[in-house]
Amino acid sequence: MNEFEIIQRYFKQPTTNNNVIVGIGDDAAVINIPKDKQLVLCMDTLVSGIHFPIETKPEDIAYKSLAVNLSDMAAMGATPSWITLSLTIPENDLQWIEIFAKQFHALANEYALSLIGGDLSRGPMSVTVQLQGLITPTCSLLRSGAKPGDDIYVSGTLGAAAFALKSLIEPQQWGHATNEELLRLNRPKPRLTLSQKLLGNATSCIDISDGLVADLLHVLHEGNIGAEVIVDKLPISTSIKKLDRATCYELALTGGDDYELCFTLPELMSSEAIEQLNQVCPITKIGKIIEQKELVLKNSDDEKINLPKSGYKHF
Amino acid sequence: MNEFEIIQRYFKQPTTNNNVIVGIGDDAAVINIPKDKQLVLCMDTLVSGIHFPIETKPEDIAYKSLAVNLSDMAAMGATPSWITLSLTIPENDLQWIEIFAKQFHALANEYALSLIGGDLSRGPMSVTVQLQGLITPTCSLLRSGAKPGDDIYVSGTLGAAAFALKSLIEPQQWGHATNEELLRLNRPKPRLTLSQKLLGNATSCIDISDGLVADLLHVLHEGNIGAEVIVDKLPISTSIKKLDRATCYELALTGGDDYELCFTLPELMSSEAIEQLNQVCPITKIGKIIEQKELVLKNSDDEKINLPKSGYKHF
Repeated sequence: MNEFEIIQRYFKQPTTNNNVIVGIGDDAAVINIPKDKQLVLCMDTLVSGIHFPIETKPEDIAYKSLAVNLSDMAAMGATPSWITLSLTIPENDLQWIEIFAKQFHALANEYALSLIGGDLSRGPMSVTVQLQGLITPTCSLLRSGAKPGDDIYVSGTLGAAAFALKSLIEPQQWGHATNEELLRLNRPKPRLTLSQKLLGNATSCIDISDGLVADLLHVLHEGNIGAEVIVDKLPISTSIKKLDRATCYELALTGGDDYELCFTLPELMSSEAIEQLNQVCPITKIGKIIEQKELVLKNSDDEKINLPKSGYKHF
Repeated sequence: MNEFEIIQRYFKQPTTNNNVIVGIGDDAAVINIPKDKQLVLCMDTLVSGIHFPIETKPEDIAYKSLAVNLSDMAAMGATPSWITLSLTIPENDLQWIEIFAKQFHALANEYALSLIGGDLSRGPMSVTVQLQGLITPTCSLLRSGAKPGDDIYVSGTLGAAAFALKSLIEPQQWGHATNEELLRLNRPKPRLTLSQKLLGNATSCIDISDGLVADLLHVLHEGNIGAEVIVDKLPISTSIKKLDRATCYELALTGGDDYELCFTLPELMSSEAIEQLNQVCPITKIGKIIEQKELVLKNSDDEKINLPKSGYKHF
């Protein structure tokens, strides 16, 4: 099968309206953007051996390549609608492609997304996904916008994905990850429902892909502000509490791959409003935005903790 | 420099309005789509060693990765506006990145395009570009739409880019390419001006990336039709006429990398209208659409010619 036949067989889907005028199969796709919306675009590439171990299964690569982009959409408060996919694979392995495509379509269908175009190439394995989504004008959740006094929150729990990755790379040092931990690494849940509830409430938002410290630093940089984070408040994943406390903190602060949201809420937000967010998805207050332009880590006894190296570097 | 710093230094540009609400530097970009337009999207990946020789200079990779997408926009009759770029490079070579970025921005500026987002990763070199463009509803030039009796045209000349590629890969067999031939390979001119004139005139259009035969076959497949092409009419690049005639035909028919447009015009189109197109960019009538679902190659003496293997396969 050549590129054209593979796309026809595994990637082209029946047209599902969804404002798609021209889908897969022409020189470009054409879509209608509703008049009262702005277009939101994000693009992420996962490279084999860099963003995931080379042994990673095709279904996990497919899931994650789409999920990390869904997480970016969540971080903006946008509703994703259309996908473009560039898949580069070393050989024409139809079984691999079939499994990849099946999982990719399954996750796309879960969020009512249409795959409208892309590219298929031969080469070292990598997957680039671009998501196109919609948002009501002026409603985006931005990295900038946090103000001194705002409370800093994270969704869900932190650290299990990073632990799973370390256990895959260095099992002798880290032991074997449980299925639950592997799911946190391979099947992150994009926080799209929570992010819709943050619209109009959060003063800033980012998703935690590179680790809490690295991503929070972007928020601080964009807002020209600082933060005080109480490490004892970090929502460490239960499953990694078997590790010593310093390792837990390090994984939660710099591990990356969590794809939770880190966002700021005004200090005066009512506890009822916060409880409503908490019912959508557990959220934890981990610190405060401060004027002084630095990131200070403290324990509950108000003692400063040294900053670990910032985040997991994909570059 | 880390990923963030490289993006800030080499890729982030001053905001140029252009309907960009949020550009580089957040989880996603946000743009305004004018109410009377549809959005056109195309994505192409170039992989080192597959789509271009590994020795290719950064400025040529930058130019071509954007130009091949501009060519897809031309093939749709769309006006490109916004770029997303995912660049994967094996090492943090700042000199390489600076040269790449400079040429990328230069070509983007030539077409008034804004780079609004993307990704930067470590890994085997590849470049994925997505272009976002606009078109008036129902005006797209599609691959489908050609009807029996329509005349088949190509823009510009064919074969020099393929010759240049062969001469780089097998210089002992093909000799050395001239600078002009190398420019045809490395610096294809997207036919955007011509394509605007084709709107409302052409019944189908595709860009020739994989070779005339392979790309024309897409048009035939989509239109459920066939074609008769007179090989003596092919606009062979002057510079490759030094080769024997069979080789010239083979390069023009299957060589790929020309990034010219292949389009169909109604048989009854006036010669004045055709001359107007010809003044924008030289165009050549190379054959006719026929009902019989096959691609027939003939010479001027009406003798059938065997079909060469179809197109250059990037996959």
